[in-house]
Amino acid sequence: MKKHNSPQYYHDYLKLDRILDSQHLLSKELGEEAHDEMLFIIIHQVYELWFKQILHELDSVIKAFDRDTVHESHIGIAISRLDRIIEIQKILINQIHVLETMTPMDFLDFRDLLIPASGFQSVQFRVLENKLGLKEDRRFVYGKGGYKSYVTEEHKSHIEEAEQSPSLFNLLEKWLERTPFLEFENFNFWEQYRSAVDDMLASDRHHIEVNEQLSEAEKQNQLKEYTGTEKKFDALFDNEKHNELIEKKEHRLSYKATQAALLILLYRDQPILHNPYKLLNKLVDVDELLTTWRYRHALMVMRMIGRKIGTGGSTGSSYLKETAERHRVFEDLANLTTFLIPRSALPNLPDHIVRNLGFYYDTGEDK
Amino acid sequence: MKKHNSPQYYHDYLKLDRILDSQHLLSKELGEEAHDEMLFIIIHQVYELWFKQILHELDSVIKAFDRDTVHESHIGIAISRLDRIIEIQKILINQIHVLETMTPMDFLDFRDLLIPASGFQSVQFRVLENKLGLKEDRRFVYGKGGYKSYVTEEHKSHIEEAEQSPSLFNLLEKWLERTPFLEFENFNFWEQYRSAVDDMLASDRHHIEVNEQLSEAEKQNQLKEYTGTEKKFDALFDNEKHNELIEKKEHRLSYKATQAALLILLYRDQPILHNPYKLLNKLVDVDELLTTWRYRHALMVMRMIGRKIGTGGSTGSSYLKETAERHRVFEDLANLTTFLIPRSALPNLPDHIVRNLGFYYDTGEDK
Amino acid sequence: MKKHNSPQYYHDYLKLDRILDSQHLLSKELGEEAHDEMLFIIIHQVYELWFKQILHELDSVIKAFDRDTVHESHIGIAISRLDRIIEIQKILINQIHVLETMTPMDFLDFRDLLIPASGFQSVQFRVLENKLGLKEDRRFVYGKGGYKSYVTEEHKSHIEEAEQSPSLFNLLEKWLERTPFLEFENFNFWEQYRSAVDDMLASDRHHIEVNEQLSEAEKQNQLKEYTGTEKKFDALFDNEKHNELIEKKEHRLSYKATQAALLILLYRDQPILHNPYKLLNKLVDVDELLTTWRYRHALMVMRMIGRKIGTGGSTGSSYLKETAERHRVFEDLANLTTFLIPRSALPNLPDHIVRNLGFYYDTGEDK
Amino acid sequence: MKKHNSPQYYHDYLKLDRILDSQHLLSKELGEEAHDEMLFIIIHQVYELWFKQILHELDSVIKAFDRDTVHESHIGIAISRLDRIIEIQKILINQIHVLETMTPMDFLDFRDLLIPASGFQSVQFRVLENKLGLKEDRRFVYGKGGYKSYVTEEHKSHIEEAEQSPSLFNLLEKWLERTPFLEFENFNFWEQYRSAVDDMLASDRHHIEVNEQLSEAEKQNQLKEYTGTEKKFDALFDNEKHNELIEKKEHRLSYKATQAALLILLYRDQPILHNPYKLLNKLVDVDELLTTWRYRHALMVMRMIGRKIGTGGSTGSSYLKETAERHRVFEDLANLTTFLIPRSALPNLPDHIVRNLGFYYDTGEDK
Repeated sequence: MKKHNSPQYYHDYLKLDRILDSQHLLSKELGEEAHDEMLFIIIHQVYELWFKQILHELDSVIKAFDRDTVHESHIGIAISRLDRIIEIQKILINQIHVLETMTPMDFLDFRDLLIPASGFQSVQFRVLENKLGLKEDRRFVYGKGGYKSYVTEEHKSHIEEAEQSPSLFNLLEKWLERTPFLEFENFNFWEQYRSAVDDMLASDRHHIEVNEQLSEAEKQNQLKEYTGTEKKFDALFDNEKHNELIEKKEHRLSYKATQAALLILLYRDQPILHNPYKLLNKLVDVDELLTTWRYRHALMVMRMIGRKIGTGGSTGSSYLKETAERHRVFEDLANLTTFLIPRSALPNLPDHIVRNLGFYYDTGEDK
Repeated sequence: MKKHNSPQYYHDYLKLDRILDSQHLLSKELGEEAHDEMLFIIIHQVYELWFKQILHELDSVIKAFDRDTVHESHIGIAISRLDRIIEIQKILINQIHVLETMTPMDFLDFRDLLIPASGFQSVQFRVLENKLGLKEDRRFVYGKGGYKSYVTEEHKSHIEEAEQSPSLFNLLEKWLERTPFLEFENFNFWEQYRSAVDDMLASDRHHIEVNEQLSEAEKQNQLKEYTGTEKKFDALFDNEKHNELIEKKEHRLSYKATQAALLILLYRDQPILHNPYKLLNKLVDVDELLTTWRYRHALMVMRMIGRKIGTGGSTGSSYLKETAERHRVFEDLANLTTFLIPRSALPNLPDHIVRNLGFYYDTGEDK
Repeated sequence: MKKHNSPQYYHDYLKLDRILDSQHLLSKELGEEAHDEMLFIIIHQVYELWFKQILHELDSVIKAFDRDTVHESHIGIAISRLDRIIEIQKILINQIHVLETMTPMDFLDFRDLLIPASGFQSVQFRVLENKLGLKEDRRFVYGKGGYKSYVTEEHKSHIEEAEQSPSLFNLLEKWLERTPFLEFENFNFWEQYRSAVDDMLASDRHHIEVNEQLSEAEKQNQLKEYTGTEKKFDALFDNEKHNELIEKKEHRLSYKATQAALLILLYRDQPILHNPYKLLNKLVDVDELLTTWRYRHALMVMRMIGRKIGTGGSTGSSYLKETAERHRVFEDLANLTTFLIPRSALPNLPDHIVRNLGFYYDTGEDK
Repeated sequence: MKKHNSPQYYHDYLKLDRILDSQHLLSKELGEEAHDEMLFIIIHQVYELWFKQILHELDSVIKAFDRDTVHESHIGIAISRLDRIIEIQKILINQIHVLETMTPMDFLDFRDLLIPASGFQSVQFRVLENKLGLKEDRRFVYGKGGYKSYVTEEHKSHIEEAEQSPSLFNLLEKWLERTPFLEFENFNFWEQYRSAVDDMLASDRHHIEVNEQLSEAEKQNQLKEYTGTEKKFDALFDNEKHNELIEKKEHRLSYKATQAALLILLYRDQPILHNPYKLLNKLVDVDELLTTWRYRHALMVMRMIGRKIGTGGSTGSSYLKETAERHRVFEDLANLTTFLIPRSALPNLPDHIVRNLGFYYDTGEDK
């Protein structure tokens, strides 16, 4: 590491002259300072700083997967970067408590001044959604010009750039599709797994049929709903059906990638699959925390303005609530839980497979 | 305080012999211990202990309001007891993280043994819902026998008893209706408030109409939705319309109680209204945390079993999600935010009213 | 509220051009970007933004108390502002988890570049300490020029200005000294309180004397330590002894202010004392959270650099640990707990006093 | 998995008849119920339930390491069990907020009834400390009979059993000592590492010497303190000095185990060391959270009783504070941070070593 010649000063290193002189209260400018506008500005600046940090980490995760051969060390890096994103997301959610110390009436004192500025216009948040892999045709539609119509031309092009660059979802899908263990030598895993699955499904269906507390109508309803679950399993064993679900937008992850992800989940205890398993889990965490953030955000807006309109002109908090579930990117990974079976029912792997999933160094400890 | 003669021993005082010997693992009994069943049992026992504590506090709040004249000191006690309930609820939510350390595959190892036991059968939770004021006709219906059909006759009667005893919702409503300040001498608050409201509504409607980013269709849609908000205001100024909303189950709190609650929210800065305001806020908090708990619980169950059936025989996590929003009790209080106006637009109170809202002791400090 | 003419744009309103372009990585400038330097910069900028917000709130609290007659409404405002500070402090503490995702080895990759910049140089933090009321002669001494020697002349004068302006501690002390209820008509509270105290102390001393599990030496030790507690009570009843403790720097709050604070704590249930009680509690919270923050910060630094030197040239994390307890400002308030007695032993107030502590409006509900 | 024949009922499965009927309020028995005694009982029962769960997990971790050859899968299990302990510990700490809703005066209403019962007497907590590896001669001494003198003979023997069984600390130490990579073929790691260390130490010392803000006396003080750090490094390179530190109780972990742990920390990025690294980290987390719990507990007790005596007869909260730092078990692991060097200065491993630290399956992706 090269050493720096000039001694550093905390205040200059952090550019505090700029950072701490960027809070211009509109209410003050107009003659009557609203005490709480400062909080409103600062908390949003803090949010944007964290978004920048999340993008910094997300870019490095994307870079780690944007290659033909992803090294073990890349996966390790991706996991620790996602871990950091997760810790930041927890702060984003907790920070809502600070904003909640602003009462609705205090907010109303300067709300009208902000119009039509709104969180809709956060460029970094849109870029973040796009880089994760939220596709435009899955977005909750709002406004005639689409979600990019609220920002300047320059910002619009930033967002579009992120739309067109390879997303984490796409890179992950490709990486999963390359997993070598799916068709490993004469590995007849799928057959055995399928037979274990059939047993479980039959047993579950039975439990509904014998549930005496349900009326006949409810029982039929439950069974009909359970048929949906069974169809998902059918699709797992049938490439064509899987693709139909994708076309209907009920699923997104490709057939092969889905199988690979499931294999990783089922055999996570094997050393070589340990990190891939953690990676998938972290992605579901990121998704879920983003969902929680949108949901908590919606509750807070509801509490702040009720059913009045937002500064961006939308009615109330309904937009945010709508996007909470809908804008999930890695939902297919989360839903893989449906396909898990008890560890005790899991087909045993033959020795030569186990070996290939282990470490090179033979500690004599794994026999 | 009388002194106790016999010296106490920690272990006996806490009945630890019983508490710590109440974990009987079914999996162990059947020959193969599932390591994680212990966690499953203990975390549910902890949940039930906290439910008992919440009921202990809730009963004391109900007792404080179950009288013709509620003293200031009763309100103070109610607030601090609700505060405790809130802190416990936060723990209930955070505890989900502990349960999430159990992986779906580990759970599957003993899930079938538990059938048909399920959280549906928590008597204390049902009692809690009833004492808060959740009415049976607002419950999400499940099962032919209603929500009480899953428990023994003895437990059913506990739940029914709670159904028939005065709920916190009802007692609070009556207390609000008795608020003396609503028609205080020649206090023409409503007229002035109404005129301030009219200005705000007109301005909000205008902001939608001039929003150039909306297509004509969307604009119509927004305006239609906003009409709903305006109707809510209409109902605020019209007893009859309010009662219609109650009949349609879009509202629950009586006309007079709604007005009193709004008065408290608007004039919370007056000393005598300070505690009543806090009380209403705490009730919304309790409601919201219960909602959050149900929602987080649903996410966790989804992550644990996917779209398989629950041990109680319901399909997946959908039941829990359904109840999260629907089982709110104090939603009307939360929605009062809709009716707030900026502090600067709030009609000034005449001096003789202010005096009646202040302290007896004249500090000479409030002039 | 005047309306603003020009429509607002989120990005411009928040000055995001400046905020998001203020992260210049030294490591990048020197040729080899250290990925984690971005986090290091951003988290410190976030800390400084929050410090600015805390100062904004603290200034308003100071302003509320910087007058001869503090209105009830001022106390209400102070409480809600302190509440916000507390919520921010919780975020400051939780944020440490984000920084902990940076491993020691990743930090070492750019640590040397920062020398001698360090958190020592945070001007806002020093101003914050001074405004709360940390006196220079109580600071843990470090460096030949004192705690202000690490910053530029300009910053030094900011810090000094805060040193000389009235601190929250001083204003609070004066306000407490003005409490009217201390010598209220022929209120012989002190005598009765003293007699209740004497009973409690005798009983406590007895419990030590009969504790059979202590050796004779330990018992003497305990009794000696308890004598310290008794001396604190003696000082409570003796102005002169109290002043001696102040001179020895074992106490800071004046005799009269101490009595007033204790009265507030003991009779908090009386309406007019409710808010003063909450105020004192919030101040102890702020103090305790600052202590926790320093302590957690010290643990984190220890984990990051071990016993190596900090970038500011101090050895390890010992400085931070040293200041955690020592830099408390409202410790005297926290310690008042020592003087509490059971509610059941509390002398009853005569009716005419109770009346003066209640509301003007006679609800007929408090008899 | 064998299926259970009899259908389960939630209430019976969880033994709720016993659990929910184990709260006997002494205050009620003596005629005047203290409302808050219920909370006091329930929160302590919850603590004990969680202690039971922690012991259940800790036992399984000990079992995983109590063998001559620890498999990779054992390490994986240990990590996930420690993860669960950590999540429980976070709840234990957060729960203090619930107890803090009890005010000091409310506690005083039943404090005397509990005497001499106290948390000192928690058998499970003592067993937990012993199983982690807290040695009696490192405990903070209290009471003439030692820490076991406060419990019954039966409980004493439980605690002693845990004292004599192999602790996690001892098993971990042995496992570390068996690490094969310390003297791997002709791996001259130590020499290169030592040379990198020498550079870093010289540079750090230089930074103190040129620090112009220190007075001469302070500089000497700092340098003296830094000499302590250098001595720690000396001991790292000198078995004999290390053993001296152990005898002086400044260190506990054996020389060889210390080296192995350091190797794991420095080369954590190698696949085979990934899990061992995480394991060491989790142990430090457990230790740190236990420290935080003790510290927060002490603050809470201070806030509750001030400098009065505890129910167990000790003066105030000083005992708890004393043990917070002193009862750490894995401090040596935490302190290894001192010995880390920048990743860029880390000696490169030769190819044949890297291979032995990697996976058996050659993905072609790691070249």
